[in-house]
Amino acid sequence: MKTEVVDQLIKIVGRDGVLTTPEDLAAYSFDGTFAEGTPGAVVLPRSTDQVSQVVRAAAEAHVPIIPRGMGTGLAAGSVSIPGGSLVLCLTRMARILEIDEANATAHVEAGVVTSDLQAAVEERGLFYPPDPSSNRHSTIGGNIACNAGGPRCLKYGVTGDYVLGLTVVLADGRILKTGGKAIKDVTGLDLNALFTGSEGTLGVITEALLRLIPRPRFTQTAMAEFESLEAASESVSAILGAGIVPATLELMDQTAIRCVEEAFHLGLATDLEALLILETDGSDEGAVMREIKAIAGICREHAARSVRLAVSAADQTSLWEARRAVAPSLARRAPNKLGEDITVPRSAIPEIVRQLRGISQRHGLPIVIFGHAGDGNLHPNILFDRRQPEQRATMERMVGEIFAASLALGGTLSGEHGVGLLKRPYLEQALGPVSMDIQRRIKHALDPENLLNPGKLFA
Amino acid sequence: MKTEVVDQLIKIVGRDGVLTTPEDLAAYSFDGTFAEGTPGAVVLPRSTDQVSQVVRAAAEAHVPIIPRGMGTGLAAGSVSIPGGSLVLCLTRMARILEIDEANATAHVEAGVVTSDLQAAVEERGLFYPPDPSSNRHSTIGGNIACNAGGPRCLKYGVTGDYVLGLTVVLADGRILKTGGKAIKDVTGLDLNALFTGSEGTLGVITEALLRLIPRPRFTQTAMAEFESLEAASESVSAILGAGIVPATLELMDQTAIRCVEEAFHLGLATDLEALLILETDGSDEGAVMREIKAIAGICREHAARSVRLAVSAADQTSLWEARRAVAPSLARRAPNKLGEDITVPRSAIPEIVRQLRGISQRHGLPIVIFGHAGDGNLHPNILFDRRQPEQRATMERMVGEIFAASLALGGTLSGEHGVGLLKRPYLEQALGPVSMDIQRRIKHALDPENLLNPGKLFA
Repeated sequence: MKTEVVDQLIKIVGRDGVLTTPEDLAAYSFDGTFAEGTPGAVVLPRSTDQVSQVVRAAAEAHVPIIPRGMGTGLAAGSVSIPGGSLVLCLTRMARILEIDEANATAHVEAGVVTSDLQAAVEERGLFYPPDPSSNRHSTIGGNIACNAGGPRCLKYGVTGDYVLGLTVVLADGRILKTGGKAIKDVTGLDLNALFTGSEGTLGVITEALLRLIPRPRFTQTAMAEFESLEAASESVSAILGAGIVPATLELMDQTAIRCVEEAFHLGLATDLEALLILETDGSDEGAVMREIKAIAGICREHAARSVRLAVSAADQTSLWEARRAVAPSLARRAPNKLGEDITVPRSAIPEIVRQLRGISQRHGLPIVIFGHAGDGNLHPNILFDRRQPEQRATMERMVGEIFAASLALGGTLSGEHGVGLLKRPYLEQALGPVSMDIQRRIKHALDPENLLNPGKLFA
Repeated sequence: MKTEVVDQLIKIVGRDGVLTTPEDLAAYSFDGTFAEGTPGAVVLPRSTDQVSQVVRAAAEAHVPIIPRGMGTGLAAGSVSIPGGSLVLCLTRMARILEIDEANATAHVEAGVVTSDLQAAVEERGLFYPPDPSSNRHSTIGGNIACNAGGPRCLKYGVTGDYVLGLTVVLADGRILKTGGKAIKDVTGLDLNALFTGSEGTLGVITEALLRLIPRPRFTQTAMAEFESLEAASESVSAILGAGIVPATLELMDQTAIRCVEEAFHLGLATDLEALLILETDGSDEGAVMREIKAIAGICREHAARSVRLAVSAADQTSLWEARRAVAPSLARRAPNKLGEDITVPRSAIPEIVRQLRGISQRHGLPIVIFGHAGDGNLHPNILFDRRQPEQRATMERMVGEIFAASLALGGTLSGEHGVGLLKRPYLEQALGPVSMDIQRRIKHALDPENLLNPGKLFA
């Protein structure tokens, strides 16, 4: 990074807000994937106004900007591209500015950690549902930029469903404010939705006004064991067809079950083809209990070998242990994993799982499958060793086949992680040329110099 | 319209699909408002491909296109502007192409009438919640173009919350397909949301893939009478604060109550300041009943004079009669009404109602207030006689004051009707110059010649 630019950044945010040593730059060179890219400098502003000045200075110097929160992303969306880009990190903007109980809204800075917001609103009987599994580290700004999901989406929707308003610094440094506390608003284009999920390519989100809901007071959990994946999948359809919308409906396939059992000895039966972990919640204790019992009944009717209901909070935690253990258990199986995030129409789950198994068998690397079955959002994780070039090449071929299989079944590349750098080569295949052209036109209209997160998503 | 253009349209859609006589043009010259504008011609295509050819032909001839469904809009969004525009009416594209029960989706053409879709999916135990009060006439395409709402939005969200995918004919005639049956999708920008609510300015929506939910099996209805509007409003806050989300939560103010009683003699007490009509629904009969009883208790604690619970389906219909009678009763009071659609943060409802009364008293024209209190979405209707120029001028001044009051309280111009022609003069005041610039840039990127619904929303 040129000295003049660094000096100007220091003028804007202070000396402690600009990082340029190789050690500091290394710390900001990766996200939750294995992608890496060293930035030219890192800047840590403390206000929307400082972000505006930083973006203006970078734009004048033609320095690309990589907006970033805690770097927990799973698509390399916040990893620097070669050529001296400026990482604009929002973690010092971490204030909860207001929780408005009467209107059930929260106004936060982009760097607030998701679980900090959740804890703060839950103290007041309110609830912020989006729960990406990184929520103890990830920031609200990053969640919005990627339209993050999580297990609760089936019932409660994704991050974008809770965005009422945004403060965004545009490519030329201007500050855009969208939306407001009014729950319904059709005054003009839906700019909240345009910036949500735009992965930092259209503007830098600095503040958000979020919709909250009443905190569900009762929760019930069940775990159902299946000898056949089809039976598990049919149970999912039957539950939803019965008009029950569980708060979560998580699936683990046989490979996932075996990885967890090998690593943690939780007593899971390793001959099972699938586990479902289900939760019902709500404000009516009787209804929540009746729903979980109805779910248990439906699973049994669909050939579940057994269904366990949690009768205490400790039981609930223990049922969730298996699901939570999946990610850590994979690290014991192989040095690296690539976690994909395809989403298929719900009815295509058995078929996509069959095809994923086929891909694994043909190429000889394990694919662990788990995810949000109610949404059709699965995380096939390829286990491999990236020090072995042939395994890496195999993994990349497998990724291509996984995406092709998902798209052929009417699915998508990503349900909640985003496109970033990693899925960019597949984007046109997923969207088609007309959509790509429209997206690029919008990008060009908002960022004609392509300074905001270049190399991601579109270009 | 030039003969060459008309001839070309006839080649595309057939002679019976192009209307040019003064009588036919008159029938397509208005919507649900009192605005009028005679088009140069009307074209009624039968397929996305025909729409594409029509748009291409119009673009070549530089003829502006006004997309339109059944013309039930309440913002003059589908009314022609002077200068020989082409009304592109989608009512002949009225096929329900698929109802996919396994994935709970419906694929429809834009001209399907909303209540026809609702009836078709309800037969299969599914539910399409958005319910604009025009749903027996309005089309899905128009609902999406305006992001229509209705009484059920508080619990179920607006039209946009049910749009999974769209087929859109762009300004140059290309066909864009967005989204798909996968419920979660973060692959690229959210183009579904961009076109939803864009009022025909960015493209012509020809088909939609809609998300359905299980049909709620049980409904309970209550009506609460209040001597003070504040008490009604506090009841609303207390109900939501207790974690209850009613399916509908409708408010009628004193003027609305009196209009209805004068016109239909339903036995409403005309000294009341407010009526609330509330509905709970769901798949658990006990929970639905407990919720309505809890609501009744909360209303009584907040000084409701009386609360009536419907004990039969006939009772339910009778409680709703008062609310349904509002619109027809206004026609008996005055020859014309202008129905606005402001939305304020929920906590500002008492203050906005006070201010609306002040505006009415200062200017001497009645304002009837009713609407969706849980959302803060109110429909202040100004009653006037447009044949009297001074009343019309007064009405226009009142509209300006109503919008100013809403914006000052953190509200918006429109919760569910849209901007169209009528609210266009107030748009910049609501959104500010930066948002206006961004919206215009997007418009220009997608429709550089400003051929799609010119004069509406932005320009």
